[in-house]
Amino acid sequence: MKDIYIADLANFDEGKLFDGYFLVLAKQQRTTKTNKPYLNLILGDKTGQLEGRVWEPGDPRIAKDFERGDVVKARGSASRFDDRLQMKIDQLRVALPAEVDKSDLLPSTTQDVGVLWHALLGFVESFTNPDLKRLLTTMLDDPALAQDYREAPAARQLHHAWLGGLLEHVVSLCTLAERVATHYPILDRDLLMTGVILHDIGKLRELSWETGFDYTVEGALLGHIQIGTALTERAIDSLPNFPPKLKTLVLHMILSHHGKLEFGSPKLPMIPEALALSFLDDLDAKMQAMQGEFDKCLREGKPADEMTGKVWALDQRQLLNTKRWLGESRE
Amino acid sequence: MKDIYIADLANFDEGKLFDGYFLVLAKQQRTTKTNKPYLNLILGDKTGQLEGRVWEPGDPRIAKDFERGDVVKARGSASRFDDRLQMKIDQLRVALPAEVDKSDLLPSTTQDVGVLWHALLGFVESFTNPDLKRLLTTMLDDPALAQDYREAPAARQLHHAWLGGLLEHVVSLCTLAERVATHYPILDRDLLMTGVILHDIGKLRELSWETGFDYTVEGALLGHIQIGTALTERAIDSLPNFPPKLKTLVLHMILSHHGKLEFGSPKLPMIPEALALSFLDDLDAKMQAMQGEFDKCLREGKPADEMTGKVWALDQRQLLNTKRWLGESRE
Amino acid sequence: MKDIYIADLANFDEGKLFDGYFLVLAKQQRTTKTNKPYLNLILGDKTGQLEGRVWEPGDPRIAKDFERGDVVKARGSASRFDDRLQMKIDQLRVALPAEVDKSDLLPSTTQDVGVLWHALLGFVESFTNPDLKRLLTTMLDDPALAQDYREAPAARQLHHAWLGGLLEHVVSLCTLAERVATHYPILDRDLLMTGVILHDIGKLRELSWETGFDYTVEGALLGHIQIGTALTERAIDSLPNFPPKLKTLVLHMILSHHGKLEFGSPKLPMIPEALALSFLDDLDAKMQAMQGEFDKCLREGKPADEMTGKVWALDQRQLLNTKRWLGESRE
Amino acid sequence: MKDIYIADLANFDEGKLFDGYFLVLAKQQRTTKTNKPYLNLILGDKTGQLEGRVWEPGDPRIAKDFERGDVVKARGSASRFDDRLQMKIDQLRVALPAEVDKSDLLPSTTQDVGVLWHALLGFVESFTNPDLKRLLTTMLDDPALAQDYREAPAARQLHHAWLGGLLEHVVSLCTLAERVATHYPILDRDLLMTGVILHDIGKLRELSWETGFDYTVEGALLGHIQIGTALTERAIDSLPNFPPKLKTLVLHMILSHHGKLEFGSPKLPMIPEALALSFLDDLDAKMQAMQGEFDKCLREGKPADEMTGKVWALDQRQLLNTKRWLGESRE
Amino acid sequence: MKDIYIADLANFDEGKLFDGYFLVLAKQQRTTKTNKPYLNLILGDKTGQLEGRVWEPGDPRIAKDFERGDVVKARGSASRFDDRLQMKIDQLRVALPAEVDKSDLLPSTTQDVGVLWHALLGFVESFTNPDLKRLLTTMLDDPALAQDYREAPAARQLHHAWLGGLLEHVVSLCTLAERVATHYPILDRDLLMTGVILHDIGKLRELSWETGFDYTVEGALLGHIQIGTALTERAIDSLPNFPPKLKTLVLHMILSHHGKLEFGSPKLPMIPEALALSFLDDLDAKMQAMQGEFDKCLREGKPADEMTGKVWALDQRQLLNTKRWLGESRE
Amino acid sequence: MKDIYIADLANFDEGKLFDGYFLVLAKQQRTTKTNKPYLNLILGDKTGQLEGRVWEPGDPRIAKDFERGDVVKARGSASRFDDRLQMKIDQLRVALPAEVDKSDLLPSTTQDVGVLWHALLGFVESFTNPDLKRLLTTMLDDPALAQDYREAPAARQLHHAWLGGLLEHVVSLCTLAERVATHYPILDRDLLMTGVILHDIGKLRELSWETGFDYTVEGALLGHIQIGTALTERAIDSLPNFPPKLKTLVLHMILSHHGKLEFGSPKLPMIPEALALSFLDDLDAKMQAMQGEFDKCLREGKPADEMTGKVWALDQRQLLNTKRWLGESRE
Repeated sequence: MKDIYIADLANFDEGKLFDGYFLVLAKQQRTTKTNKPYLNLILGDKTGQLEGRVWEPGDPRIAKDFERGDVVKARGSASRFDDRLQMKIDQLRVALPAEVDKSDLLPSTTQDVGVLWHALLGFVESFTNPDLKRLLTTMLDDPALAQDYREAPAARQLHHAWLGGLLEHVVSLCTLAERVATHYPILDRDLLMTGVILHDIGKLRELSWETGFDYTVEGALLGHIQIGTALTERAIDSLPNFPPKLKTLVLHMILSHHGKLEFGSPKLPMIPEALALSFLDDLDAKMQAMQGEFDKCLREGKPADEMTGKVWALDQRQLLNTKRWLGESRE
Repeated sequence: MKDIYIADLANFDEGKLFDGYFLVLAKQQRTTKTNKPYLNLILGDKTGQLEGRVWEPGDPRIAKDFERGDVVKARGSASRFDDRLQMKIDQLRVALPAEVDKSDLLPSTTQDVGVLWHALLGFVESFTNPDLKRLLTTMLDDPALAQDYREAPAARQLHHAWLGGLLEHVVSLCTLAERVATHYPILDRDLLMTGVILHDIGKLRELSWETGFDYTVEGALLGHIQIGTALTERAIDSLPNFPPKLKTLVLHMILSHHGKLEFGSPKLPMIPEALALSFLDDLDAKMQAMQGEFDKCLREGKPADEMTGKVWALDQRQLLNTKRWLGESRE
Repeated sequence: MKDIYIADLANFDEGKLFDGYFLVLAKQQRTTKTNKPYLNLILGDKTGQLEGRVWEPGDPRIAKDFERGDVVKARGSASRFDDRLQMKIDQLRVALPAEVDKSDLLPSTTQDVGVLWHALLGFVESFTNPDLKRLLTTMLDDPALAQDYREAPAARQLHHAWLGGLLEHVVSLCTLAERVATHYPILDRDLLMTGVILHDIGKLRELSWETGFDYTVEGALLGHIQIGTALTERAIDSLPNFPPKLKTLVLHMILSHHGKLEFGSPKLPMIPEALALSFLDDLDAKMQAMQGEFDKCLREGKPADEMTGKVWALDQRQLLNTKRWLGESRE
Repeated sequence: MKDIYIADLANFDEGKLFDGYFLVLAKQQRTTKTNKPYLNLILGDKTGQLEGRVWEPGDPRIAKDFERGDVVKARGSASRFDDRLQMKIDQLRVALPAEVDKSDLLPSTTQDVGVLWHALLGFVESFTNPDLKRLLTTMLDDPALAQDYREAPAARQLHHAWLGGLLEHVVSLCTLAERVATHYPILDRDLLMTGVILHDIGKLRELSWETGFDYTVEGALLGHIQIGTALTERAIDSLPNFPPKLKTLVLHMILSHHGKLEFGSPKLPMIPEALALSFLDDLDAKMQAMQGEFDKCLREGKPADEMTGKVWALDQRQLLNTKRWLGESRE
Repeated sequence: MKDIYIADLANFDEGKLFDGYFLVLAKQQRTTKTNKPYLNLILGDKTGQLEGRVWEPGDPRIAKDFERGDVVKARGSASRFDDRLQMKIDQLRVALPAEVDKSDLLPSTTQDVGVLWHALLGFVESFTNPDLKRLLTTMLDDPALAQDYREAPAARQLHHAWLGGLLEHVVSLCTLAERVATHYPILDRDLLMTGVILHDIGKLRELSWETGFDYTVEGALLGHIQIGTALTERAIDSLPNFPPKLKTLVLHMILSHHGKLEFGSPKLPMIPEALALSFLDDLDAKMQAMQGEFDKCLREGKPADEMTGKVWALDQRQLLNTKRWLGESRE
Repeated sequence: MKDIYIADLANFDEGKLFDGYFLVLAKQQRTTKTNKPYLNLILGDKTGQLEGRVWEPGDPRIAKDFERGDVVKARGSASRFDDRLQMKIDQLRVALPAEVDKSDLLPSTTQDVGVLWHALLGFVESFTNPDLKRLLTTMLDDPALAQDYREAPAARQLHHAWLGGLLEHVVSLCTLAERVATHYPILDRDLLMTGVILHDIGKLRELSWETGFDYTVEGALLGHIQIGTALTERAIDSLPNFPPKLKTLVLHMILSHHGKLEFGSPKLPMIPEALALSFLDDLDAKMQAMQGEFDKCLREGKPADEMTGKVWALDQRQLLNTKRWLGESRE
């Protein structure tokens, strides 16, 4: 485990030395006003990112061979210039694989991935439709896919944007979908669940999460809706005697899950399960975005009766944390 | 109970006499091409409406004193002209109050209103927040309001457009909201429930359902969002020591429940409970609209593999009844 | 070849007998005002469709065993009721396969399909990129696909809505794309051409054209963009060593060819070839729609200085046929 | 009256000492690059706001007990760093109530509030409709409401965003509405006037103007349309025998005055008076925004033939001051 | 003056003979079910239009030589078929020029055109800006333009759609603009007035009003904004020493008077006068549309407490006639 | 030719002296933190623009008499402050006309303007329609107009934003239009060409390109669509016997070439030539914008597999350079 995190530096005494492991997110050569060269870095870990400056790039204690994407061990101190926190780096070398845990370097779920994965498999286990059960079992049994499914964020920014975020989002949705499926007899529960589990599976290839969260070129050009549909179609076609109608319905659910053409779904939901999926997916994403916003306000020490700033993931609206606001009024 | 319903006439032998009770939805004086006067009526009951013609308005067996909104007993026969069904009315008189059951004359819920009402009160009973419980108890104890709440449709056309439709929609939403509230710890369950129960209460005065479903002038000019907010605010103000913050939150939920400005909500949902309410309300309305559309296709004998027509309540999209389509493929 | 076409009936002497072959587009049992049963039919051929009535359905000269989708031989006369043309059918039987040419029964291209197909293959032949050439050769060599490609309409209604319309549209686009590719060095000509030839290939399964033009259930739920992408991906995956980057680009062109999310493309064009394809496709469709509208005005005898009606395929705008308008002014 | 205003400092000799009274709009602890603590303040008055730095926060001449929202007396000098003006504060203490006039600390109307108020009462006095007259008289007689009405800004930013701005806007609208009411016989003059006077009354509680202009939590969650409607409804309900139809119309005018659903009006104007109100309100706000923009250009010394920047309150369009542009061309 | 008007026929005894002058709006050859030829006409006058049938087109009392656009004298009777009023025409001849007054045949203003014209000239007379005065004087002195200005409707359908409607609309706007110009010192009164008088002058050529109201081809292709700007520019260029800045401003007002790009103005209003013009023009059009709708309801005998239907010219909203609704409540 | 360009300074040794000619784009008086006055300049040439500071404005080697818009000769050095490049100016004087070539000071086409102009005249020469030929010949023969046509940029920013950009864009479009005109027999080739050559001619007065690219006041208030239409109309009116229909068509093409009302065209394209023009104009602009973006990425050394940033001229989408991406994959 890391000793110091980016988020800790805000409260660190200025000038005091620290040692830490960070992911190099950017690296640039620059010169000062007086024409002296220095290195400007963006260093990050799971708690955030910060600018770091190497004023003596020629110092032998500063490695020459590190690049964007490397993990480094750095010694330095924190300082504040014109009210902006910075790191001053005195020593730096590439970290050994054994020294670092990738989950320390990118934000990741606070839940236990093993438990989440077990829950997901449990939902599949509960299916009564043999075709859908065999489809999901086949897909989730693929070790590479399963590994990615456990790691992938649910989005680059908006909601569940952390390692394991996709799995966390899907398991939350499974629980929710189960409750809703029971409520509406019109819904085929296993079909809805299948849509929940597969709707974002294209993100396993749309996004990369090695050095920060980003889109792959394939992801940018095709999108996770197309990638996920194709992945699923290939899996279905590998199964003998999968009912063609069921195949059409499963693919339709992935295609239509954004609910609107302008959100990138080429088809509107036209079956009850697809309609329900698009609502629940959107609701779960927004509830998480709200929760994340409230957590951030708490961390930043905002008073309970101050609305949040304008939240991008919620159409620029401002929010109020009901429970906290009411709670304080009772004290 | 009525002997014959509008919906039955489609399969009635042409020319055969029937007796029935109908609501007069329109009444006009007209003349034939040869200048002979006749009466043109629109008669309705819970199963639909149909044109009826009185060719001998001077016949003593035809009452003179009936108006739009009256219930009449009529004797006549069905016929089809240029492929359009019509009634030919031979005798007609105003019905006695004892002869008719209003629920026969307008479409009404197929569920037991007493059971639904009991369920609603049960939800209120389960509240742990004393202020919200006392607010809802006070409002639902008002006999006039309670009577309207049990009768009102949820809409003029789009969804749950039948007597008792509002209550049916709200009870469905309560069950659903309970399940969702448990899933998200961020949600204050009683506040969400309060929003569910009160969100459409303005419809008790926005709509009239005496002679068909229509908007009142007050309803057209103010809308159920404003009417419901005012109704609730008055109820709150009548309660001693109701917490002002809680009042603001309850009113905000009613105001924002349409989820978007362009749908007539003057505020977007800004608290978790309001966000959840707007999603669940929309989902429940759309699931009912889907169900209603599928029922209609079944009644009309459409084949299972034919998409529905373009459904107005669902942005003109066409729908497919998953279970029926899959079901037939297994036979 | 047929002796009489729907379009001819408008100028046919009322009452005079005709014999003709028609496609049964609809068939309904009805009764007259006096309770007499009759059959109401919609009969069509490549020139249009018309209502036909069988007033004596019990007549032995009227077949009992025909259904929607059958081709029938009918004898009857044309008449006009309340300014609306109708057929009165006296005799009717199911046509023998040998008696009819399907291309007589649905509107179809006025160009020679063999010539068009040859032109298409010629474009593929001219490719210098071996991978794209082998992809298209493989796909177009599939006899079933080739048969469908020669028959399919380009759309249900808006443009090139006739048998062979897709092929006609694609060959027009190939010629155009060739000219544009030469103009912009930034464009990869073979990649652009590949996009042109494959962009609408999903329509082979999205649409059915046996009994009028309609959407299949699969087409309605998945859309031709998804169907075409999947078809192409499968073809690519069957080819050894197809470059993965090229695959991504080809799929991107199909996905993005509608040019806007709200038109059902899940991705905007992000490469020069996709941008050019979306422009040319749209331009060619609109030019054809204009041409079709002008032809219709000519057929209907509208004067040269009268704007067309509001054209649905062109955002409800009215059009003017420049050449005709100028031409007349010179006479 | 204050001796020095924020706006004066731009032309103040650098380094020369000033004494002034300011409103503390923000207060933060910071440290310099060399880890020395200092205070960063935002100080404001009616002419603007400026950053101020206390480099010696431990100096006994610097008060410890002031907070955001306090009015302070400060001694210091102005300086410019990297072309940005700043205050360097040497002494600072909380001001005594008697020392300051609140209207010096926030921008406020340049008109005489007493005269405006008198004009407003004069309009009410002129009513011939006794019910509307008694409604307005009752409301404006409430001393707390009257006090707020005289102080409130008309908006947080867009137009009339200064103390007394609401009253100024309403009196301007009254004069305008009087002229328009005479022009259209269809308009009920007193009803239109009532709408003018009450349309923004909810802003008295939607906005706070103690320490800068901001939204209250109630204002953010309910909005001035709902707050104003409720306030008015309560006043009406307190009057014996107020005609119910008139009540509906008055409330409708407040509800619909933004003219469009997407601007937060839950109802479109459906009566002539509401339509006229929405037009005049919008016109007056935009004319004031134009005037304000032109005044700013003049202050900043922009030449007469230069368009303004993109004006946010006018859909980002650029403006030209006609009179000034023409005027110069005549010199 | 005509003896009988279309509007009178609704209350005319069926079968009774009338004589009247009508404009032929359409003329078609048709045959009956029994193959008998007849003529179908649409006849109109200023009060409306109606279908007329000539059952004996060979009768020598029926002229052969009339066409669409002619004025005819017809003798016949009114009858009602399937609740739709019709004329049965027994005699018909082309009317002599002396027999008819064109203003009887198309709807026309109820105000005195001479008085309106005089008022318009009076406004021009009152100008103090000599350039604008000389521009308008020159234009309105052109006899052909002045004649058209007195006749033109203000629109084909939406508002002031009658002969003299444009003049009526402009004079109403002049009065209104005068009042508003006095209210805002920022406004150059003569420039605003010039915009009012010229903003729709392109309609003199965009519309034709000989045989019903329609667009000319030039009008359809260029639009009244372009036509009016060009007309004005030509007039300005014919005046010696007209100030170029003033020319730009006048043209800008015509160009931008629709207020939004999507309403066909290629520029948004960027000067105060243009902004005011776009508001007042829209307000006056909508007030007239409201008045027209209320008049229609009154004519049709709708009760005072029934909202109008959805009004196309007012974004499909329903309206309520305030004064009438309140009035009845006082009776 | 200039010795040093703005773009070169990024790689210039800090502190080393340079001499260069620059256009003064802005000039401001400022003072340092210590109250010392200095001059802040924005200097530009065809390769970009940069901030320059004169720390000793009183130095006799610094001219007093230069203004925004002047070309100056400056001696100084480049330095970097907080990672932002700056010039430090030691000497500065106004350049002599003979010393500078205007095409060095603003970005300009890399093509030969003489060749482009010749190509344009060649297209006109090829016309078979005598009226259109004489119209274009007359206009392009006007020396002032021809001079402007050869210099004008096609836009202020989005595409072809350099001297000669308009001519370059038009000649590209002519070639393209020629190819498309041959493809669609419905198109009148000379009319389409006329539209191509005249569609942006209003930019000659909408834009100014003396001191950077900017809008004139006339341009801002009227726009190039109106200015170009008027210019063309005047030219047509000066030609004897120009066919009026042809005039309407030519003007319609200029008016409608933006293709949508919301893009500032007051009319949608309603004739085939106008439709084609709007497509080709948009396509050519976007192809150039893509090319420009790819060139920029290459200059900045971006890797071939990195998408571009969000491109403003292409609806904020990101782009991929197909050829470069594929090319690298083959190496």
